[in-house]
Amino acid sequence: MTSRPNSKPATQSIRVELAERSYFIHVSPGALASLGKTVADLGRVTSVAIICDSCVARLYGKTALDSVQAASLPAAMIEFPAGEASKNLTTYGLLFDKLFALRPAIDRGGVLVALGGGVTGDLTGFVAATALRGLRYVQCATTLLAAVDSSIGGKTAVDHGAGKNLIGAFHQPSAVLIDVRTLKTLPLEEVRSGLAECVKHAVIRDAAMVDYIDAHAEDLLACREDVLTEFIARNVAIKAGVVASDEKETGPRAHLNFGHTIGHAIETFIGYDKIRHGDAVSLGMVAACEVAVRRGLLKAADAARVEQTLRRLGLPVRRQGLDAGKLLAIMQHDKKAVGGTIRLVLPTAVGAVDVFRDTAETDIRNAIERLSRE
Amino acid sequence: MTSRPNSKPATQSIRVELAERSYFIHVSPGALASLGKTVADLGRVTSVAIICDSCVARLYGKTALDSVQAASLPAAMIEFPAGEASKNLTTYGLLFDKLFALRPAIDRGGVLVALGGGVTGDLTGFVAATALRGLRYVQCATTLLAAVDSSIGGKTAVDHGAGKNLIGAFHQPSAVLIDVRTLKTLPLEEVRSGLAECVKHAVIRDAAMVDYIDAHAEDLLACREDVLTEFIARNVAIKAGVVASDEKETGPRAHLNFGHTIGHAIETFIGYDKIRHGDAVSLGMVAACEVAVRRGLLKAADAARVEQTLRRLGLPVRRQGLDAGKLLAIMQHDKKAVGGTIRLVLPTAVGAVDVFRDTAETDIRNAIERLSRE
Repeated sequence: MTSRPNSKPATQSIRVELAERSYFIHVSPGALASLGKTVADLGRVTSVAIICDSCVARLYGKTALDSVQAASLPAAMIEFPAGEASKNLTTYGLLFDKLFALRPAIDRGGVLVALGGGVTGDLTGFVAATALRGLRYVQCATTLLAAVDSSIGGKTAVDHGAGKNLIGAFHQPSAVLIDVRTLKTLPLEEVRSGLAECVKHAVIRDAAMVDYIDAHAEDLLACREDVLTEFIARNVAIKAGVVASDEKETGPRAHLNFGHTIGHAIETFIGYDKIRHGDAVSLGMVAACEVAVRRGLLKAADAARVEQTLRRLGLPVRRQGLDAGKLLAIMQHDKKAVGGTIRLVLPTAVGAVDVFRDTAETDIRNAIERLSRE
Repeated sequence: MTSRPNSKPATQSIRVELAERSYFIHVSPGALASLGKTVADLGRVTSVAIICDSCVARLYGKTALDSVQAASLPAAMIEFPAGEASKNLTTYGLLFDKLFALRPAIDRGGVLVALGGGVTGDLTGFVAATALRGLRYVQCATTLLAAVDSSIGGKTAVDHGAGKNLIGAFHQPSAVLIDVRTLKTLPLEEVRSGLAECVKHAVIRDAAMVDYIDAHAEDLLACREDVLTEFIARNVAIKAGVVASDEKETGPRAHLNFGHTIGHAIETFIGYDKIRHGDAVSLGMVAACEVAVRRGLLKAADAARVEQTLRRLGLPVRRQGLDAGKLLAIMQHDKKAVGGTIRLVLPTAVGAVDVFRDTAETDIRNAIERLSRE
């Protein structure tokens, strides 16, 4: 795939192959205006509830609602307070109160729409997974992170005081819409955070995309419509392929955790409200590459290449003050750890990774300590 | 299958065939003592949390806990207040607080045990469905209703102010244990309530079981160990067969709703705390049979036979003060209604039912009004 800077980008549609749970992801500038048609095409739809936070409601609520109503479907909007703090059982319960108060009453033909970023998608997906034992839902991603990562694959969840995403379910969306135009209102730091996941996709599956990111870093950071449409489609295709090969994360889907085991530990250590997810993942990827080099799995030059690409995007590759001992303890209590063993996804080349459960603690410790140097 | 009144009943094991989600249901007097072995046999178990209400904890908590500990598994007990009122999102949240506070911390190798009746099973199943996006769980049914119905099939849920079971998920248990001896402590009314579901099984699949119930009504109501073990196994096999044919209730599983559409409406109209579930189902079955007779689907003699069996068990077949108009309105808002159409499961003979969406309102109205006559 190449960028076509002078052509008007058309809609790119990618199918996630999951037998009777297969669905399409549509990427285009202006996709939101086709929300009503996308929902109606699902068939047998009795009503639609659009769930979004108060900020997104102001920006895109009317476009979404108009589109659904233009498709002659009964539509309502349900709002919740913006912010990561809303991703909990309390908001989950409040959404049900509002959902079950709608008239006409929601029935099994009802469809939910998650309009927003990762918090909205995870929360709405979990409500959809558990309302009447499962309703259909459509993801409308309005952040880059949601577009290339959280809106695809059916992981839904809320946080608990004991940790993030501890309560949730696998529930695939019936469709995903990515309106590239909605990404233009994102702060630069949010765009960077999303691009960290794109670097992850490149390292685990698509070495050529590392070069592409290097060559188009400015266009990507500026959210240039044509470049971004093609680039998101390319990333979506990678994620869709991984999810299709392993829906419930018993095998290769774990590859998507590259950079995330150490990254999550960094987020927990620093505090989720004090470091952006993409920044933590960037640091986690640098550390995982270093572990791979120490274990003789990866060439030092390849690790340096990944690090350079992260720098090009303005993502952090060094961080002072990380306590390696504490990070190790956090990793041993990770949701994905079983019996205290740390599972790491490590690159064996740029574009290929594998899962390892036998990494020596010293290798992890040294890799984390290296993040504080230079 | 015949009863063997003079032989010591052995364990009866029935398999629910659901591909990789298949599991066994073990029925025997004293089955609870084998809980630890049953859990350990699931493989890769890191810890066990037994969830039960305060009453059941007193009666059977120690037996269950001892059994798990004897199998060398880390075990903990989590209690919640007894009663239908606990089946809500508040208790659901409190169970997570306790679950995530356990040490060693629960991980994906953790197994939950639902020790109790329908409330405990539905609640624990829903916690298991959504803790870390899905943990394994074992149902230990201590009521007849749970034994022959709610513990099998993977329907989990909590209630919402807007209706019963509105929030939940399909999540199959990894095993079901039914200790017939624990049923002996049940009040007679609870036994009757469970037997209503057994009559339902007979009407939808097993005409000979109607005769069996007639012949053994006293033994069943007295919970005679040998008779009950065989009888529960026979009912469990019917439910297991229906679930295996249609896990998510898109087809024949709906047959299990025989008597329940009108029954649920009666419960909602009278108030869930003022009428026992089995009593409402008994009335619902009588009304559904009457609708079937009025539609020319069922012989009047067959309807009379079902009614006589319900009377034999002391279950209600008449009820004053039901408002047919209000019941109809409630049915149109049932969770299973789509677009306001009432779906009824009606017998076409004793032992055979079908799903009908085209019943005239007058037929339903007349059948309900007949419940008030005599």
